[in-house]
Amino acid sequence: MTNIDPAVGKAVLAADRKHVFHSWSAQGLINPLPVAGAEGCYFWDYEGNRYLDFTSQLVNTNLGHQHPKVVAAIKEQAERLCTIAPSFANDQRSELARMIAEVAPGDLDMVFFTNSGTEAVENAIRMARLHTGRHKVLAAYRSYHGSTHGSIALTGEPRRWGSEPAIPGVVRFHGPYPYRSAFHAADEREECARALAHLEEVITYEGPQTVAAIILETVVGTNGVLVPPDGYLSGVREICDRHGIVFIADEVMVGFGRIGEWFAVDAWGVVPDLITFAKGVNGGYVPLGGVVISRRIADTFRERPYPGGHTYSGHPLACASGVATLRVYHEEGIIERVRRLGEEVAGPLLRELAERHPSVGEVRGRGLMWAIELVRNRDTREMLVPYNASGPAAEPMNRVAAACKKRGLWPFTHFNRVHVVPPLVITAEQLKEGIAILDEALAVADEYVTG
Amino acid sequence: MTNIDPAVGKAVLAADRKHVFHSWSAQGLINPLPVAGAEGCYFWDYEGNRYLDFTSQLVNTNLGHQHPKVVAAIKEQAERLCTIAPSFANDQRSELARMIAEVAPGDLDMVFFTNSGTEAVENAIRMARLHTGRHKVLAAYRSYHGSTHGSIALTGEPRRWGSEPAIPGVVRFHGPYPYRSAFHAADEREECARALAHLEEVITYEGPQTVAAIILETVVGTNGVLVPPDGYLSGVREICDRHGIVFIADEVMVGFGRIGEWFAVDAWGVVPDLITFAKGVNGGYVPLGGVVISRRIADTFRERPYPGGHTYSGHPLACASGVATLRVYHEEGIIERVRRLGEEVAGPLLRELAERHPSVGEVRGRGLMWAIELVRNRDTREMLVPYNASGPAAEPMNRVAAACKKRGLWPFTHFNRVHVVPPLVITAEQLKEGIAILDEALAVADEYVTG
Repeated sequence: MTNIDPAVGKAVLAADRKHVFHSWSAQGLINPLPVAGAEGCYFWDYEGNRYLDFTSQLVNTNLGHQHPKVVAAIKEQAERLCTIAPSFANDQRSELARMIAEVAPGDLDMVFFTNSGTEAVENAIRMARLHTGRHKVLAAYRSYHGSTHGSIALTGEPRRWGSEPAIPGVVRFHGPYPYRSAFHAADEREECARALAHLEEVITYEGPQTVAAIILETVVGTNGVLVPPDGYLSGVREICDRHGIVFIADEVMVGFGRIGEWFAVDAWGVVPDLITFAKGVNGGYVPLGGVVISRRIADTFRERPYPGGHTYSGHPLACASGVATLRVYHEEGIIERVRRLGEEVAGPLLRELAERHPSVGEVRGRGLMWAIELVRNRDTREMLVPYNASGPAAEPMNRVAAACKKRGLWPFTHFNRVHVVPPLVITAEQLKEGIAILDEALAVADEYVTG
Repeated sequence: MTNIDPAVGKAVLAADRKHVFHSWSAQGLINPLPVAGAEGCYFWDYEGNRYLDFTSQLVNTNLGHQHPKVVAAIKEQAERLCTIAPSFANDQRSELARMIAEVAPGDLDMVFFTNSGTEAVENAIRMARLHTGRHKVLAAYRSYHGSTHGSIALTGEPRRWGSEPAIPGVVRFHGPYPYRSAFHAADEREECARALAHLEEVITYEGPQTVAAIILETVVGTNGVLVPPDGYLSGVREICDRHGIVFIADEVMVGFGRIGEWFAVDAWGVVPDLITFAKGVNGGYVPLGGVVISRRIADTFRERPYPGGHTYSGHPLACASGVATLRVYHEEGIIERVRRLGEEVAGPLLRELAERHPSVGEVRGRGLMWAIELVRNRDTREMLVPYNASGPAAEPMNRVAAACKKRGLWPFTHFNRVHVVPPLVITAEQLKEGIAILDEALAVADEYVTG
């Protein structure tokens, strides 16, 4: 661990509290931990406390912190050319686009680069609307798509509320969620069939010829690691085909290996029309996102100008870090190791946890993306804390998180869930170590179990 | 010049045309120049053609390309820590926020970081709406604020059209533009008075208590380098104060020295409530933007969570490049040199050009931000090409641009205007060299002059 120096940490925090306005926060009620350094799956503060990162920061540092090959690529490109306008051609931009096209499914082989996931979603809906000449976009409850005014309107959870009304034309539907079925389904197969029937019904009432796109997170991320039942995504694809609707798979969180596939849609062999990405493409080492575009949609903008753009679209430094990242994926067999760690370590160990702790209602996931859903009662499935709880109501979850941190594990918590979303380079040993800490911390949740 | 190799250039272009989807373009009608390298105020292609950059790319490379101190800072930070989530405190983020607060006007001393200018604008309008509890935002015609669905709705020019309807609640007004007055004013003073009366009238009809914010580019950028008449910005400030409206100064293009002031509002001694920035803060070496926030608005979110955020908000690598950039501004006296170059070189030489060329209707600007407005007739002020011209109608401007490029100058053109917006580190000699080329190229525009 480098840079351990409590006095520096205090100064960093003091300037932060005076001048830095933080995301999603009440500025007077936060006390951000000053981070002194990070490497691989660990980061540490200025006091010398080290944490095993089970969050990948915001589920983005897929290769962990400071991967030497990506760092070297950034330094090399910084020496060569930091930036150039999007109207030029640039070697790193060309190469990253080629590499993404190479691993993207079906005929998705053009890439529009952005700076972030939210900008990717904004552009995807613009492309879909112009391609179809239609206006409405269908988006799911329990989803997050970004915080600018297009993507936040699509978002199906409380983070949207403070920005409403945002764009018009967004129609909401319920996705599959067998554990808390909106369709009163008895099992996964019934959930899948009813979710598709529901989607079809919404489209019927909205008028299929008015619907430009259906957007969904291939595996829902922050809102619960909701893995779609087999048949759901192919059913959505079929509905889209039948009605001429653009299928947008938002893979900002799951793209680039999170579930052990290059793109999560690959797990079900489904080819969407547009895929949005960010985070994993370069681990967030330099801000970068984008849209992978099918040939058919790209052709819409062959003679007709595409009316969108960003000053840093295809940023050379960002793209160079992406090229290095994807090379590491290939060289180190990241996709295969995620699949193996999910099947052989994370899955089995988390299911054991579920058996031992009465507070665990369900464990679900795939690859290195798992959710532990905590309840007060396994029969009623009452959530450990209410939906969108804050303040004293959120205390049980805050206590679970604190128990993890005290033991050197930095957990990802959301509502009544703990997610296990570590860097994809985590070792089996580190995974076991972290899950063992979770095991201890869940004793706190067990205290709240009734009946 | 490094990397000269036509074969490599061809390969870069081939991959680009196959896989890169470009901003604001008809993908089948573009032929992007592959850039092999860049340094200071020059960039060059793989054939060995070198261009003096009078565009600063997209008016962002304020310190030119590859400033050694900024490159060194990026390399150093890449070694230390590329990224960390926004919920932590980070030394580079704290330091950049402190440095921005130090040079920001009035009580603007908190900074919310984003990845881009458009994300900055999206957050500024969200802050204004929540701070006031009101919904409408007033924005000017002839403005550009970004291409996500909030900022594009605010945009007052054709780039908005393909994204409509975007967010609701945007009300349009006319800003001052003495050369083509919407108010039939005879001079600057009358233009200022009438523009303020017009703004007040729009507010009266909309209902002042429904208006959250007025947003404007302090000096309008791409839409014409419209320098506000003295008294206009203070008049807007007074109107905002009287009605409890938030004044958002969009300084994505003009902030950080473009007109010879840290922030352009400083030229008129006006303190807005929010300032949006990007581009110049770090020259675009790493994607970065943000909002500088007044104490009063920050306090709104002291106990109440701010509902917005970005995975890379306050990105360490981006912030480190910003810290290095602002240090260079201080050490090299960038602000003063821009002011001097504007007053002693750019202004006088461009005015001479105007005298020599009948196609020049007006030259206007400040610091290193100038527009040459080209006309077919100085009396009628008929534009050299129509508003939003494309295809054959745009040919006169395309020919002017081609004449510049042929002579080694890369020009910024928009509609019927050539803008002079070079890097702020340009020397007097380079400025003279570029303007001498413009002088030759304007002979092409003169051909179209009638009467």
